Amino acid sequence: MNSSDAANADGGVTMAGLSLEQLAGLLGEPFRGDPCTRVARVADLASAESDCLSFLGDRKYRGALEQTRAGVVILKEPDAALASVPVLISRNPYLSFARAARLLYPVPPVVGGVHPAAVVAPDACVDAAAWIGPTAVVEAGAQIGPRVFVGPGCIIGEGVSIGEDSRLVARVTLCRGTRVGKRALLHPGAVIGRSGFGFAKDGERWVRIPQVGRVVLGDDVEIGANTTVDRGAIGDTIIHDGVKLDNHIQIGHNVEVGENTAMAAMTGISGSTRIGRNCTIAGAVGMAGHLTIGDQVHFTGQAMVTRSFPAAGSYSSGIPAMPSAEWRRNVARFRQLDELTRRLKQLEARVAQCSAAPGQEDN
Amino acid sequence: MNSSDAANADGGVTMAGLSLEQLAGLLGEPFRGDPCTRVARVADLASAESDCLSFLGDRKYRGALEQTRAGVVILKEPDAALASVPVLISRNPYLSFARAARLLYPVPPVVGGVHPAAVVAPDACVDAAAWIGPTAVVEAGAQIGPRVFVGPGCIIGEGVSIGEDSRLVARVTLCRGTRVGKRALLHPGAVIGRSGFGFAKDGERWVRIPQVGRVVLGDDVEIGANTTVDRGAIGDTIIHDGVKLDNHIQIGHNVEVGENTAMAAMTGISGSTRIGRNCTIAGAVGMAGHLTIGDQVHFTGQAMVTRSFPAAGSYSSGIPAMPSAEWRRNVARFRQLDELTRRLKQLEARVAQCSAAPGQEDN
Amino acid sequence: MNSSDAANADGGVTMAGLSLEQLAGLLGEPFRGDPCTRVARVADLASAESDCLSFLGDRKYRGALEQTRAGVVILKEPDAALASVPVLISRNPYLSFARAARLLYPVPPVVGGVHPAAVVAPDACVDAAAWIGPTAVVEAGAQIGPRVFVGPGCIIGEGVSIGEDSRLVARVTLCRGTRVGKRALLHPGAVIGRSGFGFAKDGERWVRIPQVGRVVLGDDVEIGANTTVDRGAIGDTIIHDGVKLDNHIQIGHNVEVGENTAMAAMTGISGSTRIGRNCTIAGAVGMAGHLTIGDQVHFTGQAMVTRSFPAAGSYSSGIPAMPSAEWRRNVARFRQLDELTRRLKQLEARVAQCSAAPGQEDN
Repeated sequence: MNSSDAANADGGVTMAGLSLEQLAGLLGEPFRGDPCTRVARVADLASAESDCLSFLGDRKYRGALEQTRAGVVILKEPDAALASVPVLISRNPYLSFARAARLLYPVPPVVGGVHPAAVVAPDACVDAAAWIGPTAVVEAGAQIGPRVFVGPGCIIGEGVSIGEDSRLVARVTLCRGTRVGKRALLHPGAVIGRSGFGFAKDGERWVRIPQVGRVVLGDDVEIGANTTVDRGAIGDTIIHDGVKLDNHIQIGHNVEVGENTAMAAMTGISGSTRIGRNCTIAGAVGMAGHLTIGDQVHFTGQAMVTRSFPAAGSYSSGIPAMPSAEWRRNVARFRQLDELTRRLKQLEARVAQCSAAPGQEDN
Repeated sequence: MNSSDAANADGGVTMAGLSLEQLAGLLGEPFRGDPCTRVARVADLASAESDCLSFLGDRKYRGALEQTRAGVVILKEPDAALASVPVLISRNPYLSFARAARLLYPVPPVVGGVHPAAVVAPDACVDAAAWIGPTAVVEAGAQIGPRVFVGPGCIIGEGVSIGEDSRLVARVTLCRGTRVGKRALLHPGAVIGRSGFGFAKDGERWVRIPQVGRVVLGDDVEIGANTTVDRGAIGDTIIHDGVKLDNHIQIGHNVEVGENTAMAAMTGISGSTRIGRNCTIAGAVGMAGHLTIGDQVHFTGQAMVTRSFPAAGSYSSGIPAMPSAEWRRNVARFRQLDELTRRLKQLEARVAQCSAAPGQEDN
Repeated sequence: MNSSDAANADGGVTMAGLSLEQLAGLLGEPFRGDPCTRVARVADLASAESDCLSFLGDRKYRGALEQTRAGVVILKEPDAALASVPVLISRNPYLSFARAARLLYPVPPVVGGVHPAAVVAPDACVDAAAWIGPTAVVEAGAQIGPRVFVGPGCIIGEGVSIGEDSRLVARVTLCRGTRVGKRALLHPGAVIGRSGFGFAKDGERWVRIPQVGRVVLGDDVEIGANTTVDRGAIGDTIIHDGVKLDNHIQIGHNVEVGENTAMAAMTGISGSTRIGRNCTIAGAVGMAGHLTIGDQVHFTGQAMVTRSFPAAGSYSSGIPAMPSAEWRRNVARFRQLDELTRRLKQLEARVAQCSAAPGQEDN
């Protein structure tokens, strides 16, 4: 049996690890210290032991750097002097650390095959190098590419296609016709391509409108646990290359999310909204439907997005938490805000009169 | 094998399509143009080809109507003159389109049977015309009616009953004792009837209170992907006929939702709140417990509902997003709002004195 | 087959019930009335019949007490005189009711075994007294303790351990390496230990950072339906003993939640935030990352938590819903709040001058 979920997202630990010289060669970065120093796992500066790779991302942790017992630390040139252990020099220590960690924790290669407790339709097309795990169901006409990992409990609907090297960790549901690109990573509980929320009113009753579009996921897309992406009503819901979605996200029908945009957990995007490239959308943001969000737009957590934001920039809303007693008083005033503003205006007018009055007396 | 999820929510395309005359007859509406014009699928006005049915819902799209190559367009009488293609005349084009689309994309009939990879308890009562899909589990005492579709990976707990023509797309969990009416549509990841969040405090520890009620879903109810409805603590949680719930919704124990009320994604209703009929509740709304919401109440997105709203009407809360710098300044002022109001009052009093003073001088 | 989900969360009804004398003995509390009065189920005061146990928690329901037909009512000493039915006297009727209900609805004992439709890896270690349900998957190296109930459709990843008497109702996913303590209760759709949302930027692209920590759940932890807890990036995500999480909650990587803290549905906690003991966090609260929340902190619903709150207390944010027209006016003013404040200051300065002026005239 292939190793399951966790292994497939993050890989297992190499037993032997890598030497500093090897790491430096693979990352293409200079190092200082004993080239034979071996690291086999990652740790933060404070808890690292001699077989650990660590990094200094933020200079405020320089105290920890001075005391670390890590085997190797990745850091910027100016900080190298502070370290008493071997170092790798990087302009972007966090990125270099990410790359090094991927070398230390390689994703194990997928071994092709179909588990006997999987259910695969006779006319599904499963590449010989793909793995279909136990209790997974693959329906008619599905196409599953090379080295795709379909974990336990996944359901691959009719006519779905999954590009090479994609990984469905476990219990992922791909509804009919969904297209998944290459190197996707889909987490447990994700539901892609369900028939979305479209109704016409017939008097007081709702009449469901068939949702005949699809979901199309680009390459290198990640979909978090229990996240849902609804299929298009007419036309497709499109998640472009490199998009990263966290857990519990809702993407409505016919939404389009541009390349490399990332969204944190609990965010919901209503139908037909188009989001540009390279946006970062924090947690629990809510967007109305039919909006246009430009490239490089950033929304902070819990933002309530009710209009289009075509221009790059950072946008926010919401009231940060405060002691409840204080909040109650301020909220009461908020409800009077329009009235307060009118009173302020009246007062301004009156003061204008009032200050004019003494002037007249001067005459 | 029955065709799975997507097919069952929305049906497959009929190969032959329907003629304009047939459509008009089935919908009971007049038409203009060649009665033999055939349409086989739906599209929007802009992308429609000659085998497509489209509609003009909003007059702002009249430009697209003039240019469309659709086979047939559904529209209102006054717009008919603008179309150069055959038209169906309707008072409510969107509703007529919904009905027509359901004719073009009929849900395929359920073929009765139990997949060999399903697990059905010996004393479960499954109608011969119902389908139990692969890896579905049906437990003791469950009753599954005619033409019910139980998709792959569904779990039907002890003593659950499901009314005729209901469809569980895939991976739906119905916990013990849940009752589902007729023609329900339940999407993947939905969890109905879990034992809700009820605890008594014993010093610092929580003691779980058995939740001995059920969930009762009426007829024509739709439950979105990954939506949860908790069973009643004592008595039942009730979702009345025609209610439509989107994805990621939470319905707490002993909540009651009135007929034809619709809720958009990410909305949460706390325990024992009662919601009336024909309400529309937008996305990410949160309601406290033990509230009473009347009929025909509308809440806009992200509304924070902390008191009852018995009267019909539209209610809102929240601060729409704005540039973060502007937001930061305004939020800081919000925290001073009570103080600002007091200062305004003092100033009003002072100005009253001040303007009185010159008056006294007049004496 | 073991009885499934609901049964396992809450137990089935004992047929014979308990006498008042037995109940009083088991709870260690005094009673009044016929010691042979038998109750077999629970109900609220209004709907209770003669075989029902009920309770008076809040004195505002004393009217219902006077009219109840319950077999036995649990109440405080001062209310006993109002009841015409047998009573159990308790200082904390709600807690006593919880305990009594657990006696009336005992969780049925787990019968050890592995369902033939379960898939258990050869080297998984499953206690003989544990139950592995149909279509459950247990992967290599997993350790499942005595009397653990693994419901249908659960996926137990590599190297996971589950302590004695824990219950996974159905469709729970435990990713690689997750540790679950004793007496846990995990609801359908929960995903524990998925590889969290950690990326470094490489130009415009995101590079996933291996998440090599685990999730560790203490004893007596409850995890709601479709709730997700991400594994640590480096080090562990820790949910301490007695924590209760409702449905649709998101716990980010390396979060720590202190003993007996409870969170209501739809709440999201961003990475590396530490929450103290005995906190209560209402629904739809959002917390930023890297915060420190003290012990006995209470957040009200939809609170937006963007800074640390080390001190015990109640904290709130958000604007409660109001009629949409009123809301629109106030929101418009909110956007002018900083400007309004400046105008108020100017006015204050001007009035100070203005009132100084007459004073000067007095001279």
